[in-house]
Amino acid sequence: MSGAVLPIVWADPVLRLLDQRVLPHELSYLDCQSAEDVASAIHGMAVRGAPAIGIAAAYGLVLAVRRDPQSFDAAFRVLGDSRPTAVNLRWALERMREVWRRRPDAAALLAEAIAIHEEDLAQNLKIGRYGAELLGQGAKVVTHCNTGALATGGHGTALGVIRSAWAAGHLAQVFNTETRPWLQGARLTAWELHEEGIPAKLVADGAVAHLMTREKIDWVIVGADRIAANGDTANKIGTYALAVAARRHGVKFMVAAPSGTFDLSCPSGQAIPIEERTPRELTEFRGEPVAPLGYDAFNPVFDVTPAELIDAIVCERGVISPVSEAAIRKLLS
Amino acid sequence: MSGAVLPIVWADPVLRLLDQRVLPHELSYLDCQSAEDVASAIHGMAVRGAPAIGIAAAYGLVLAVRRDPQSFDAAFRVLGDSRPTAVNLRWALERMREVWRRRPDAAALLAEAIAIHEEDLAQNLKIGRYGAELLGQGAKVVTHCNTGALATGGHGTALGVIRSAWAAGHLAQVFNTETRPWLQGARLTAWELHEEGIPAKLVADGAVAHLMTREKIDWVIVGADRIAANGDTANKIGTYALAVAARRHGVKFMVAAPSGTFDLSCPSGQAIPIEERTPRELTEFRGEPVAPLGYDAFNPVFDVTPAELIDAIVCERGVISPVSEAAIRKLLS
Repeated sequence: MSGAVLPIVWADPVLRLLDQRVLPHELSYLDCQSAEDVASAIHGMAVRGAPAIGIAAAYGLVLAVRRDPQSFDAAFRVLGDSRPTAVNLRWALERMREVWRRRPDAAALLAEAIAIHEEDLAQNLKIGRYGAELLGQGAKVVTHCNTGALATGGHGTALGVIRSAWAAGHLAQVFNTETRPWLQGARLTAWELHEEGIPAKLVADGAVAHLMTREKIDWVIVGADRIAANGDTANKIGTYALAVAARRHGVKFMVAAPSGTFDLSCPSGQAIPIEERTPRELTEFRGEPVAPLGYDAFNPVFDVTPAELIDAIVCERGVISPVSEAAIRKLLS
Repeated sequence: MSGAVLPIVWADPVLRLLDQRVLPHELSYLDCQSAEDVASAIHGMAVRGAPAIGIAAAYGLVLAVRRDPQSFDAAFRVLGDSRPTAVNLRWALERMREVWRRRPDAAALLAEAIAIHEEDLAQNLKIGRYGAELLGQGAKVVTHCNTGALATGGHGTALGVIRSAWAAGHLAQVFNTETRPWLQGARLTAWELHEEGIPAKLVADGAVAHLMTREKIDWVIVGADRIAANGDTANKIGTYALAVAARRHGVKFMVAAPSGTFDLSCPSGQAIPIEERTPRELTEFRGEPVAPLGYDAFNPVFDVTPAELIDAIVCERGVISPVSEAAIRKLLS
């Protein structure tokens, strides 16, 4: 699928987004005609994954200025507000704003969006290679959420490492979590792994600690939505629990993300805003009630894994291991 | 609901079991006419919860000998094989066999089944009182799976401690996990807490470690399916991950279970058989595919929490804390 089905397609004059809420059993695209359409697709999680929402937002600005060149700032705000935690969104928007400031021209803006899109794929191929080199022969790995072609410009970040390791013949087995409540693992990662023919099993989020008592797991490999200057990493809810279990079992923990994911203005994870979404994502399933009507829920979308639990951060510039603010600043400088 | 809706009703000449697979949105009973019907209800998870399946199995033997007094041993086997992990099932069956050996009489067997059923409620009220005494004022607690009136002869074990603590005015807030893949927390525990008016929020299994970074949680309180001689405890999958997170955050961890849950013939958790169920429990939701068709899964139903992570085991005879084989044997002797 990673070749055949693209999650983000610039189909001039619209931005076509694969509706990831109904995957893998329905292939349906949304045609976005405005920045508002794109922001709504991001907020509604039709498109998700930190790099992918950055790319989609970049195209969203193109749609805005084509309709009205005066609307750049308003579109910048509506897109920037669509999800609070992933920094790639802001990173991509700010890169676009630089271009617009130099030359307020829709064609230049489109060229920049396409560049962001293409660079992301190129970066992921590098991340994949660096990450795969860290894995020994016959590695067994756990991954969380979806960080594949669907979440990025292609190949993927953590799932890109897994793809590259499989291609290099290093990989024996993947266990991918369901990833409640949106089941990105069961729906999206499972689909990508299945299409690639990579040996993989689904596992409930809460079963991974037990799995580590039954199988020798070598690495947990996850993506990131924002990495603070000290290496603390915000990622999909459930990541921190996996890191805690990994440390207890001597399993190594890798974060794979493009350099746009670092936010050096955040000194530590405590400064990262954590999005909370409606209780209904837990109390209902596909619109059907599961819990009693009106039952309350604590539904954070992300959590923060402290740097001390992370053995390696892999980006397109190389590998940071051990993780420290000095090592991060050095690699990014 | 705990007063109004009973999960196990001896409605002579049938055993009426509340079908917990369709709760809380449907109230539907299964009428079991034979030991095979009861075994099928246990295996199919219409009735679940370690104490409840022990009680149901005891009545199952009554149904068997009423139809054919020669069928005791065959019924004993079919019921004993219905679920492998919970020891209460075997404990209840063996208690029934003692009675049958002394006096092979259906009426005596029925009296014993009723006694097991009634004693379980009485034990839970004691467990609730002992457990609640361990909680300080304004306690915030996490519980997993369903260990309430639905899982037992009434009141509940871990949820019984929560009920008793609430009645005593000790409790400020409950967070109850969804408990994938069967969602016993979202469907059953949420229902019981809602009916009692206890302040409660649903939380994804993988979000509890993050919750512990945001709220001062005092105790994680869980039930047990089997407790080995050294205190290692088999319970619903996901329990071990909660215990690992609790230890990291200085949150205390309580196991609440009747003394029939101890299996002194098991030296440690390694000797406890862990049931695995079909991958479809993860790859489908209510019969609808979620993951790609044919995708594999690792689907253990239980895990083992080592005694070193358990601060207190509470049974109807009292509290074991700190947990050690010597303390367990002393309390049970």
